[in-house]
Amino acid sequence: MKYAIDEAKLSGQDIPVGCVIVQNGKIIASAHNEREKNNDISAHAEILAIKKAARQLNNWRLDDCSLYVTLEPCPMCAWAISNSRIKEVYFGSYDLKYGALGSKINLAQISNTKPKIFGGIMEKECNELINNYFSELRK
Amino acid sequence: MKYAIDEAKLSGQDIPVGCVIVQNGKIIASAHNEREKNNDISAHAEILAIKKAARQLNNWRLDDCSLYVTLEPCPMCAWAISNSRIKEVYFGSYDLKYGALGSKINLAQISNTKPKIFGGIMEKECNELINNYFSELRK
Repeated sequence: MKYAIDEAKLSGQDIPVGCVIVQNGKIIASAHNEREKNNDISAHAEILAIKKAARQLNNWRLDDCSLYVTLEPCPMCAWAISNSRIKEVYFGSYDLKYGALGSKINLAQISNTKPKIFGGIMEKECNELINNYFSELRK
Repeated sequence: MKYAIDEAKLSGQDIPVGCVIVQNGKIIASAHNEREKNNDISAHAEILAIKKAARQLNNWRLDDCSLYVTLEPCPMCAWAISNSRIKEVYFGSYDLKYGALGSKINLAQISNTKPKIFGGIMEKECNELINNYFSELRK
């Protein structure tokens, strides 16, 4: 999760969210939120990391991979994660408003492939990322 | 929807789904499912069309656009559509298993931006697309 936090810090003007995908203890893909930068609604950290990992493995099926992300995935990303067959998801901050792996809804429940979900990993550090961003924005 | 059906027929080895986005009565983007072709879990027709429309308008906010798609959007696409602020969604076939605009769940209900949803448009023709694909696959 430390690497995901470092990745989140590269988000620039975008809401800081970072994601890494790990296979056999090795990071095979990492990405941060680039929605505003890329002018692309789908350019969330998770989607970008999943695309990179699929290119890396030449396969969209990421069965033996784990995903670490600083914020609980939204419905778009939660579904992409489940459909990618990622086996474990570790997220930092809970998103009570839009979190789709347990907080608002749990899309893994209606998916064919159900990743194991671990929330609140390095939660304090991950919360700080988001809180600092919005504090700056309000100034 | 006729144009979305024509677009779906370009899906090749992928499950046939086509999507067009309309602004002021004019098609500004169209796409078909390219998951297998692109080896990309996010390459559903709707996501690809939304990205094209955003590039076309140089803005990810598609407030005054309508989206036509041959199959009810999955949770990933339903959330991307809502977040893009698309005002109206017309879909053909209902997807009782994964449809996220009313059939299995309705993600528009938990989104800030709630498109108007019209299902079952040219439903027979859209059902035929999917049924023919799976009939061929079983042969």
